[in-house]
Amino acid sequence: MARLPVYLRALNSLLESEIRSCSSEELATAAGVNSAKLRKDLSHLGSYGTRGVGYDVEYLRYQISREIGLTQDWPVVIVGIGNLGHALANYSGFTSRGFRTVALLDADATRHGELVAGLKIRGFHELSAIVHEHGVAIGVIATPAAAAQSVCDEMVAAGIRSVLNFAPMVLSVPEGVDVRMVDLSSELQILAYHEQRKAPLHPEAAPTGTAGVA
Amino acid sequence: MARLPVYLRALNSLLESEIRSCSSEELATAAGVNSAKLRKDLSHLGSYGTRGVGYDVEYLRYQISREIGLTQDWPVVIVGIGNLGHALANYSGFTSRGFRTVALLDADATRHGELVAGLKIRGFHELSAIVHEHGVAIGVIATPAAAAQSVCDEMVAAGIRSVLNFAPMVLSVPEGVDVRMVDLSSELQILAYHEQRKAPLHPEAAPTGTAGVA
Repeated sequence: MARLPVYLRALNSLLESEIRSCSSEELATAAGVNSAKLRKDLSHLGSYGTRGVGYDVEYLRYQISREIGLTQDWPVVIVGIGNLGHALANYSGFTSRGFRTVALLDADATRHGELVAGLKIRGFHELSAIVHEHGVAIGVIATPAAAAQSVCDEMVAAGIRSVLNFAPMVLSVPEGVDVRMVDLSSELQILAYHEQRKAPLHPEAAPTGTAGVA
Repeated sequence: MARLPVYLRALNSLLESEIRSCSSEELATAAGVNSAKLRKDLSHLGSYGTRGVGYDVEYLRYQISREIGLTQDWPVVIVGIGNLGHALANYSGFTSRGFRTVALLDADATRHGELVAGLKIRGFHELSAIVHEHGVAIGVIATPAAAAQSVCDEMVAAGIRSVLNFAPMVLSVPEGVDVRMVDLSSELQILAYHEQRKAPLHPEAAPTGTAGVA
């Protein structure tokens, strides 16, 4: 499943370049995965391509979108409209096919009424009413860490069962609720790990067992 | 490797709660992984815990930090100081142990000199000089998609070999350069996929082969 968004992104770039059909090798290269794995994944969707022609890019995009659930409408609410919430509200992926940001909420009353990405910032106390009115499926938390758990609890109480958390804080949720945490510092750490292995600039920090004699 | 930042986050929360030692089961629960896998991962670091006592939280945190490379100093530069760059500059993970943001660069000259997170925004043309002066290892791209590839090319030309890309755009880099892309819309898509499977509100969007007779 985690590879479907990657295939979708690759198919979107192919369409932007007006490429209408592609081989599994071309798609695998665009997606940065191995082509045997890609063929296997796509066969699970019932998509095998046509011998000598390859895959129809537009149709495959539709199949993957449907599998992910993007042919439905997913109303999204963003809570915490600081710099990050502001950036998310303007982020194209949050307003494109499938997703629709219906409300921006912030606890700071001095911000209410301010226009961000075409929406007025509203009070956090309106959460439950907004969830019911719009059938909000996904709540995005962009608050400081200290507020994240209580915001999450209110989201769950209002009926939201999918939470995307940007606060650097592990959230507890009841069974049946999904939380995905975007931990920006993990990404930096993974880069540091690889960078360290490229060039051991500081031998004293080399991993045990591989450090040379200084 | 991808689990090391997760263990590190769990150890940090344990330390914040003043827990000094823990069993593999406790750490596995805090990290949200299975304890057999955790013990195997930690044994690769040469860390086995003590029978009846468990792991020394602080020492294990040091071992994992060293393995990731966080006992070194990683100067970071952020390019593109819109809302997202602004949020990143203020994000604790980008200024904490191991990482140090040394410069914020933006192409917009009207922003130069503005103070963000204690640093003055500087011109993008200063990139190469800053990389050499500070030995910048990691470049963070928070520009619009259209600018991302050329910013990345300049980073690589200046000697940066690890890039964290927030622009919704797949970047091409030469061999030896690592790029990690944080694709915020993939995260939303993964939530939508699971949400769809919880409650098929729109049967016509159900995956092939599982749709019931309407």
